[in-house]
Amino acid sequence: MKPTVEIVLSPLLLPLTDIKGKVVVIIDILRATSTICAALDNGAKSITPVISVEEALSYQSGSYLVAGERNGEKAEGFDFGNSPLEYSREVIEGKDVVLTTTNGTKCIHAAKDADEILIGSFFNLSVLVDYLQASNKPVVLFCAGWKNQVNLEDTLYAGYITQALSNSHEWESDPVEMALDLVEKAKKDPTHYLTRASHAKRFKRLGNNIDLGVCMEFNAHPVLVKYHNNKLVSA
Amino acid sequence: MKPTVEIVLSPLLLPLTDIKGKVVVIIDILRATSTICAALDNGAKSITPVISVEEALSYQSGSYLVAGERNGEKAEGFDFGNSPLEYSREVIEGKDVVLTTTNGTKCIHAAKDADEILIGSFFNLSVLVDYLQASNKPVVLFCAGWKNQVNLEDTLYAGYITQALSNSHEWESDPVEMALDLVEKAKKDPTHYLTRASHAKRFKRLGNNIDLGVCMEFNAHPVLVKYHNNKLVSA
Repeated sequence: MKPTVEIVLSPLLLPLTDIKGKVVVIIDILRATSTICAALDNGAKSITPVISVEEALSYQSGSYLVAGERNGEKAEGFDFGNSPLEYSREVIEGKDVVLTTTNGTKCIHAAKDADEILIGSFFNLSVLVDYLQASNKPVVLFCAGWKNQVNLEDTLYAGYITQALSNSHEWESDPVEMALDLVEKAKKDPTHYLTRASHAKRFKRLGNNIDLGVCMEFNAHPVLVKYHNNKLVSA
Repeated sequence: MKPTVEIVLSPLLLPLTDIKGKVVVIIDILRATSTICAALDNGAKSITPVISVEEALSYQSGSYLVAGERNGEKAEGFDFGNSPLEYSREVIEGKDVVLTTTNGTKCIHAAKDADEILIGSFFNLSVLVDYLQASNKPVVLFCAGWKNQVNLEDTLYAGYITQALSNSHEWESDPVEMALDLVEKAKKDPTHYLTRASHAKRFKRLGNNIDLGVCMEFNAHPVLVKYHNNKLVSA
């Protein structure tokens, strides 16, 4: 029998899925998990995800760079926001970062009972798929959503992963079937497809016309990211 | 400004949506809301939805017919299960029914703060759409799912309703966008599409090869169903 693949569409639905003994992939395409992949691929030493703005700021006296957002905008007093474009090699190489975001970083903590926690984005799609296929373990694709609401971009990405795992893994899951339908609808032009997402509309209202396209650059940062000893590191 | 339409994909996600002042449509295609429409269209006087099997059985000493299921099968000691086919005019006309099901009846109680609670199924699709268009109020399409998991059939139906409301209502909602994609994928043959649903597979394992097709008969029971004074009645 093949290992299973499941999709958790929102943090509120996580209690329905037993994650023990499974590999959990955290997905927050716009933008936490994209930013994490970009920063680590650009040479950041580690990223420590924390829940609150206050906790993040408490690291500021040390050697950490403090990064993150609330409601899509850089939090006050932070060194960086949550756009992958801010994390260039020049500023991030060799640095330890502490990160807090509206949705994504909370999920990493919620998944702590998993066998392994990985980070997924379009930036590292192929590298992640190769690893999941080779590991031959059950996989849970955990979508961060937006303030617990199911969103289009994380579900679409989960569909891409599932489609790639269709030979190595199996499922009986309506969320997986839905996500696969989204891939079919989106695959001709996934960036254009995601302009329908409420997060894309939120970006537009904030005057951000660039991050959606950036976060859709398939395999731009081919790095496998694992959560280990409370830090995210390139594996 | 047009009134909004929103979709709640699972009872666990209901707290994210403010339902006060809105019309909530309860959706449990396989099979509670289909059965409710069939029974009322076939002349049942009222249907009282209750949460537990014990509560349902407490009505049995009176003049009520007691109906419902747990895990897709008729509950012990009940007069009827949860298949629309059981509720023919011969047995149901003029009767008061008490009903409990795994998913759907709980949602009716969870939606009690709404301005109005209606019942949706493929059986009464057009009648319901006509009413929602004319009422010009914000609409929440509340999918019962399966044991709180998001499911394909309820989401698909919510997509059909939304598509029909696209001139009278508006939205900025990723669950709505997803549901519309499912409609596009399914519309050539929605019954065949739903053979991918885990509930359809569950039916098959229980030896039930008929109820999926039955519940997909568009407008077979054109009755508007409202929740009023703790009872569901034909309006």
